[in-house]
Amino acid sequence: MSKNDTDLSLMPLGGLGEFGMNCLLMGAGQTRLMIDCGVMFPSDDEHGIDFVTPDFSHLERFPIDALVLTHGHEDHIGATPYLLQWLRRHRNGRRRQPLPIYGTRFTLALVRRRLDEHNALDEVDLRLIRPGQEVAIGDFGLEAIAVNHSIPDAVALALKTPVGTVVHTGDWRLDPRPVSSGQTDLARFCALGERGVRLLLSDSTNIEVGGLAVSEAEVAEALLDAFDLAPARVVVTLFSSNIGRIQSLLDAAHATGRQVAMLGRSLQQNSALAREMGFLRMPHPDLIIAPERINQTSPAELVVLAGGSQGEHGSSLYRVAMGEHSQMRVMHGDTLIYSSRQIPGNERRVTRVVDAFHRQGAEVLFPGTRALHTTGHAHREEQSLLLGMVKPKLFMPLHGDYRRLHMHAELAKRLGVPRSVIVNDGETLTVREHEHVISERLVTNPGYVLGRLGLAADTELLRQRRHLAFNGMVVVNVVLDADGGLVQAPWVETIGVAMDVDGVISQATRVVETALAQVDGPRSRDRIEESVRVELRRYFRRHLDRKPQISVVVNTLA
Amino acid sequence: MSKNDTDLSLMPLGGLGEFGMNCLLMGAGQTRLMIDCGVMFPSDDEHGIDFVTPDFSHLERFPIDALVLTHGHEDHIGATPYLLQWLRRHRNGRRRQPLPIYGTRFTLALVRRRLDEHNALDEVDLRLIRPGQEVAIGDFGLEAIAVNHSIPDAVALALKTPVGTVVHTGDWRLDPRPVSSGQTDLARFCALGERGVRLLLSDSTNIEVGGLAVSEAEVAEALLDAFDLAPARVVVTLFSSNIGRIQSLLDAAHATGRQVAMLGRSLQQNSALAREMGFLRMPHPDLIIAPERINQTSPAELVVLAGGSQGEHGSSLYRVAMGEHSQMRVMHGDTLIYSSRQIPGNERRVTRVVDAFHRQGAEVLFPGTRALHTTGHAHREEQSLLLGMVKPKLFMPLHGDYRRLHMHAELAKRLGVPRSVIVNDGETLTVREHEHVISERLVTNPGYVLGRLGLAADTELLRQRRHLAFNGMVVVNVVLDADGGLVQAPWVETIGVAMDVDGVISQATRVVETALAQVDGPRSRDRIEESVRVELRRYFRRHLDRKPQISVVVNTLA
Repeated sequence: MSKNDTDLSLMPLGGLGEFGMNCLLMGAGQTRLMIDCGVMFPSDDEHGIDFVTPDFSHLERFPIDALVLTHGHEDHIGATPYLLQWLRRHRNGRRRQPLPIYGTRFTLALVRRRLDEHNALDEVDLRLIRPGQEVAIGDFGLEAIAVNHSIPDAVALALKTPVGTVVHTGDWRLDPRPVSSGQTDLARFCALGERGVRLLLSDSTNIEVGGLAVSEAEVAEALLDAFDLAPARVVVTLFSSNIGRIQSLLDAAHATGRQVAMLGRSLQQNSALAREMGFLRMPHPDLIIAPERINQTSPAELVVLAGGSQGEHGSSLYRVAMGEHSQMRVMHGDTLIYSSRQIPGNERRVTRVVDAFHRQGAEVLFPGTRALHTTGHAHREEQSLLLGMVKPKLFMPLHGDYRRLHMHAELAKRLGVPRSVIVNDGETLTVREHEHVISERLVTNPGYVLGRLGLAADTELLRQRRHLAFNGMVVVNVVLDADGGLVQAPWVETIGVAMDVDGVISQATRVVETALAQVDGPRSRDRIEESVRVELRRYFRRHLDRKPQISVVVNTLA
Repeated sequence: MSKNDTDLSLMPLGGLGEFGMNCLLMGAGQTRLMIDCGVMFPSDDEHGIDFVTPDFSHLERFPIDALVLTHGHEDHIGATPYLLQWLRRHRNGRRRQPLPIYGTRFTLALVRRRLDEHNALDEVDLRLIRPGQEVAIGDFGLEAIAVNHSIPDAVALALKTPVGTVVHTGDWRLDPRPVSSGQTDLARFCALGERGVRLLLSDSTNIEVGGLAVSEAEVAEALLDAFDLAPARVVVTLFSSNIGRIQSLLDAAHATGRQVAMLGRSLQQNSALAREMGFLRMPHPDLIIAPERINQTSPAELVVLAGGSQGEHGSSLYRVAMGEHSQMRVMHGDTLIYSSRQIPGNERRVTRVVDAFHRQGAEVLFPGTRALHTTGHAHREEQSLLLGMVKPKLFMPLHGDYRRLHMHAELAKRLGVPRSVIVNDGETLTVREHEHVISERLVTNPGYVLGRLGLAADTELLRQRRHLAFNGMVVVNVVLDADGGLVQAPWVETIGVAMDVDGVISQATRVVETALAQVDGPRSRDRIEESVRVELRRYFRRHLDRKPQISVVVNTLA
């Protein structure tokens, strides 16, 4: 990434080649910005990992002047505390100015809460941006443009750069009938398009889905109908940052004479924050009741909102389903409304929770036949409309796997955009006055967040965990006298290797004895360890087709 | 499960409450049958497990006289070798007669191959059944009825029992235009319905999907179009037992002047078997070429079929995508056709493989916009048709999670079936002349197959593996002299715990020293172990929020 006065350069650190950990470096003149700093949720073979973050190691060569956030979802702001942790660790004794972070009101409120939890608020300088106002950040001019998304106060960005205007959509959709967050500012996109846009970057999440997405208002109507028909209590699960959906649920509850209890910390915190900031209206001052009052409220007059739509172990919905929640049990006649998407990979977890409701006599309403949920990401024809309005000279698809990025680039080509370019994590796109080039790809190794230490795992550590999970562990203790003779029978402990079928575990002690007998000559600790390890490995491979991790402890009585 | 001369009893051991490991016990008179004996593929937190099997422990109380197989998919036949392993282990010195296994030609051929791999062929007596012929199995009369499914020679079962006729569909669908396996024998279902059916059991897999499924012939047309338009080589991935699909692909290849190479052992074996038995027709004797000839064949005259549609590590498709296959690399201009379903949970794996093709310049055709794949399971309106034809007095939905079973039972009710009953794994449905009852649910603990030992893991072992994967492992060695003093600094090894950030790993030795110093009075091995374990656990919980598995080895110099 050059710092050349007349060039613009862009390098994604995450989000291009996968879904999540969105993070894009953008450099022009003497200024380098980071756009978004999100986490990705670990895949199932990233054991014990809390979050995956973009590869910050490239900031050593390309330090940033500011972070700009498009909206408050975790895949756009969640890695900010780990970015600051990285900066602290790589300060090299230098004092560091607080990092300027630009965002809208709701976005800054969410990132402030997150940074406060990590005691990192004094390392940042939060700077408010409002749609329609332009701010200068070094050699960039930045304007936020209101967009509709499944969280309030989301914005796209229009950036003035040495090579012309760049439009970055963030996550967005059109919604002809939005519920609480406003409509996408199409007029502004049109005006920018008329004046000329050099580069457009847009969200490819739903590029495979045709047509236009269902409106949030249509979901509100379906929810109202469902509340109306439910004979007793209604339980709704949803994403806790979906304030528009919460608004629809509060309105539907009020309209059907029900009060609302909320289970789950994120849901409670996000609702309180949104209410405080004016993004959530209470249809009645007494609508919300404390969870303690759930059992004293008449079933036909109650709605319970519960976090945990992905079936997460320990979430409110999970605990209610499994009979482990102190404030609520499933009752015969309950109606569970699943007002959310199942994130791929979570199907079995979701099924476990939903089936538990069902088995205890609840009715379950799932999206599919009814519009109980809609997306926050533009479908293909919404993208077509935007491309037609912005009319960029160059198009770069954002957010997604390669297949979707490719499909989005193809769509732009068919719509007459002169050039499209697919940029992967670690590649640099350099845009000059009359050309653009992609430079060689740098390796990006995502960061792994592990418990309170934050960034504390790497691919080697994950390899060790996968190996333990697949094979189990064997600990062997051998005690020798001064002459190298066995003082006592070797001790063998196995953890997660196999059940003792056909004596496969109990006979391992004999394998160790055989291994010891095979060591000729001087019985050094290393030679004994090696012999035991080799024999045990061979033994378990033959009988089990697995390679347990083996730790051999040899002690010699002096 | 009673053995009462006038009752019929049914107990599912698997497949009712989850997808997979289909297995149903059925008892009448002095005879007890097992219908199907399938595996389930492990979920991502069942580490290192090859397959999950039904809970065979109930066979101790309810021994079986025969196994009846409806078709040759793994979720219906795959647990047969482990059933035989279980029977061997629980023989209690008794000599055992070979187990009779009933199935159609193709089904028996597949189960024979599987049992041969496990050297278990002499423990069974394979008995051929043909649609339309009735056989007596003890007190049951059994008739197979041809059904259409995504594998040849699939059948439903009509069983004569003391309480009347029972129809068990197995897996089935209607296909107005089948390709190689025949049509579902609707006339036979109608005739049975006319004569009176006491109980119908039917497949609920696709009950949430409306309408009728796309015909296999429509898929064949889409594949032909795709072959026609592909500028160079075509690579197709699919399920290896889908012989009808293989037929369509061979026909399309021949029609577009292409030869076919097959990569992957299952694909090669299944095709050879199907060809031998007349289920697969070769449109031309020279159509198939050896994989070694892939690189000598002109790209526009080649189709490669590759196993590994779920992105499985080490599969043919995976190795081609990653450049690890000895016989083939991806070339610019290749067309990859994904003629399969993504099984939920495999999305990331599939994306990794498909994106790798894309990045190397291949075009990728995915189902969705085109009919490149269709299902083998009846959609909702196909189920409605069947219910209308069979007109059972009692209906019991098969195969699926509770939500789908419930939906299927509701459909039967709406269509006028007098009674529906949802039976879960471990429950017994007893059908008498004028009533039916469900008895208390027995606990079913699935079996876990682990490497060459077969059934060699239980839930406790899986818990240990999950714990290791989430937390990692610490091995500590402490060597004391006769007075209980430390002979040398304690030795600490960590595996997969965390990177040594802020000295969290390197300082663990000091924690062990502190723990030792805290042991007052007699320093027994147990007290030392306990103290070290407690202190280390506290230390890692505080700094890491994780609880590594800790193994403490204490040796005393006498």
